[in-house]
Amino acid sequence: MLIPAIVDVAAKNADWQTFVFSSLLTGMVGLLLSIAMGGSLSEGLDTRQTFILTTLSWATLPAFGALPFLWLGVGYADAVFEAVSGFTTTGSTVLSGLDNLPPGLLVWRSIMQWMGGVGIIVMAIVLLPFLRIGGMQLFQSENSDRSEKIVSRSVELIRLLGLAYLFLTVLCIICYIATGLDLFDAFNHALTTIATGGYSTHDQSFGYFTNPASGWVAVVFMIIGSLPFVLIIQALRGQPLLLWRDPQVRALIGFLAIVSLVLTVYLGVEMNFPFDEALLKATFNVVSIVTGTGYALGDYTQWGAPVIGIALLLKFVGGCTGSTTGGIKIFRFLVFFGTVRAHLRRMVRPNRVMSEEYGGTRLTPELSFSVLAFLVVYLGSVGVITLALSFFGLDLVTAVSAAATSVGNVGPGLGPVIGPAGNFAPLPDGAKWLLSFAMLLGRLELFTVLVLLDPDFWSR
Amino acid sequence: MLIPAIVDVAAKNADWQTFVFSSLLTGMVGLLLSIAMGGSLSEGLDTRQTFILTTLSWATLPAFGALPFLWLGVGYADAVFEAVSGFTTTGSTVLSGLDNLPPGLLVWRSIMQWMGGVGIIVMAIVLLPFLRIGGMQLFQSENSDRSEKIVSRSVELIRLLGLAYLFLTVLCIICYIATGLDLFDAFNHALTTIATGGYSTHDQSFGYFTNPASGWVAVVFMIIGSLPFVLIIQALRGQPLLLWRDPQVRALIGFLAIVSLVLTVYLGVEMNFPFDEALLKATFNVVSIVTGTGYALGDYTQWGAPVIGIALLLKFVGGCTGSTTGGIKIFRFLVFFGTVRAHLRRMVRPNRVMSEEYGGTRLTPELSFSVLAFLVVYLGSVGVITLALSFFGLDLVTAVSAAATSVGNVGPGLGPVIGPAGNFAPLPDGAKWLLSFAMLLGRLELFTVLVLLDPDFWSR
Repeated sequence: MLIPAIVDVAAKNADWQTFVFSSLLTGMVGLLLSIAMGGSLSEGLDTRQTFILTTLSWATLPAFGALPFLWLGVGYADAVFEAVSGFTTTGSTVLSGLDNLPPGLLVWRSIMQWMGGVGIIVMAIVLLPFLRIGGMQLFQSENSDRSEKIVSRSVELIRLLGLAYLFLTVLCIICYIATGLDLFDAFNHALTTIATGGYSTHDQSFGYFTNPASGWVAVVFMIIGSLPFVLIIQALRGQPLLLWRDPQVRALIGFLAIVSLVLTVYLGVEMNFPFDEALLKATFNVVSIVTGTGYALGDYTQWGAPVIGIALLLKFVGGCTGSTTGGIKIFRFLVFFGTVRAHLRRMVRPNRVMSEEYGGTRLTPELSFSVLAFLVVYLGSVGVITLALSFFGLDLVTAVSAAATSVGNVGPGLGPVIGPAGNFAPLPDGAKWLLSFAMLLGRLELFTVLVLLDPDFWSR
Repeated sequence: MLIPAIVDVAAKNADWQTFVFSSLLTGMVGLLLSIAMGGSLSEGLDTRQTFILTTLSWATLPAFGALPFLWLGVGYADAVFEAVSGFTTTGSTVLSGLDNLPPGLLVWRSIMQWMGGVGIIVMAIVLLPFLRIGGMQLFQSENSDRSEKIVSRSVELIRLLGLAYLFLTVLCIICYIATGLDLFDAFNHALTTIATGGYSTHDQSFGYFTNPASGWVAVVFMIIGSLPFVLIIQALRGQPLLLWRDPQVRALIGFLAIVSLVLTVYLGVEMNFPFDEALLKATFNVVSIVTGTGYALGDYTQWGAPVIGIALLLKFVGGCTGSTTGGIKIFRFLVFFGTVRAHLRRMVRPNRVMSEEYGGTRLTPELSFSVLAFLVVYLGSVGVITLALSFFGLDLVTAVSAAATSVGNVGPGLGPVIGPAGNFAPLPDGAKWLLSFAMLLGRLELFTVLVLLDPDFWSR
């Protein structure tokens, strides 16, 4: 919060005070909590405490992140929505007139996403596999264990992660500047690109930047942000081939290439876009939605029914696990296709022995089950949230796309209100609270929150 | 086909000839097939042949059922759509001006649904449990086996089923007449009520009948049509309590009661309907959608966003297995909730032994897995079909509701085109073919069709 304060001071903007006050309040609460709880964590956490702490952390951060918005006169529901959307790297916004907002506030939005992004990576690598969330046990490694020696290894891993994340952010800033963005835009967009967050400093989102090269830089760094960061570290240490050997990475790149190509052809043939424009707009928006970034390059809801259908479905996909992306995530699709094919074959030939693998690991029935359960709960949650939103008077397109974009941590919805050319401000407060919950639910991969809702969790 | 011929003769309508021709052609092809294949079935079918035969039967019936429509000048896509919608008891229609159609054709539509209804029950009781489709092995009984003795028992069961189905149809006709319908309307609507089909003889569907008692008769018989027919036979034989002890039946009735009540309150408070009208319209439409009948009582898409949200979600539910309904079906929700709760609890306390039951039967992991796989494939299919429909230019509300209503074998969709006040005629032919496939896919509980698409199925 002190960085936006400095930015506002430099810009001679009086808002610097709100950031200083917010940071003081946040720091004080943090200090008090730390004194009150001091030392009690050193005994280690059991499974239940880990569930509670993970959920509480992600619920508490936005509460403090919302402070600067509150001081600037934004309503409670809006401020919390904006902060949750920030920390979860969703990128849905209730603010408009971004181009004229005080620079400190814009920087604060970007920083929330940047911090959220690295938090997600750490959570996905260190916590979720240990909690066995929706098949994440597939990625259990020495880093997901809890013995003393391992903690120090985790600390080392987190340090490397932070360095890689910082390095890529700086690289992204430089690339943006090289393609013509000014320092302020380059800084803000680099932070929200690598975090696959999607907050922009312009109402037009990426449509504001006319140089196609800037768009391609964004495409590259959005994809980087959706790759497994453990493998990115290996790549930066000189083993880039490990990335390409990963089943998630291959599937993600292949999927993005195919869908972008189909959309390019459609935009060229049906909408008469010139080839280079069609290629950029198709690739940019496909990558932006699949990685859950949420930038828009043009209002793609005006490009016909097929684009709207594609945009809705893509909101469910997500990138690789261990990255900054949300959504269902590629490895779950791979496990799903493998196990369902095996299931169908067993139906036909019950006596045949089938074994499925994922990247060299034999899949246990328990793991396949976890993934399927995750998929049903994910799709069911989108359905239930859609229904609940309809009770706030939202039309079906707005409701279903808002539900999908929130649980998937993507960003814009579909339709005239919350589409890529609109924003979430006109929604009723109740819908904003519900969507804030949905963003956290998706970010915590559903099960982390849902276990807390079972009375059995709290017994004994 | 001879019954509509007789009806048209009685009505002095020249169309009787088309039905006689159609029946001759159908009979001839049937005779030839029977001579060509004669005896070869007596050796019994293996699993693969059962899959092929089941799918082929359901694909062939509508091909012949479409003949009378073709002769009357309806296009190929429309005729097949109408026949598939008939035999699968979906109830989506491409015909308008129903009130002025020749009576024979209306009777033929009703008869297709009535025959389809009993066919579904037999398939769900005798075939699907043996094929272990999406958890149907839960309902494996001596009737799902294939030994000689069992075939004769199956034949006896099918005879009883037929009798019960006929008895309930006649009872429904009598009740409809008692509430003021003329014989023709009573006959047609009884056939499509007990089959939870939904074809009506009026463009206004059930809105044509002004006596509330007729609506309540429909509610009762739609619910009866969605109960397990094996238990209905037991009830007719003097053991009605068995029905109430069945977990599916209890859950279905409870669910219908709660949703109807919520909608009644909403219609009373928000739409200012008088209580009795609100109660009837809410209950009727909820029961009609959940059971997959598809009658409409009023254009509920005009009753505000919440009703549209509810209507979309209800299309997925379905009734009990072993009945005439489509959709996901109640027992799969029960298994899903049970296994996911156990899954969440195992995540928190990995060492605890959990066992789940369904109606006294211990659930095997394989069964829970089947049900979860079915749910994901079901929801995924609706997603893929929605996307494909958007490529035919359908807007999102039309596309998603058409996909859900077809796979769920419900009937009308949502939105101005295919909503309860519209019909499917304006859709492009490609969309109609796709939806015809979707109706068959849903009716065959997906896996029965999907196994055929795996090249591995055809190997060796």
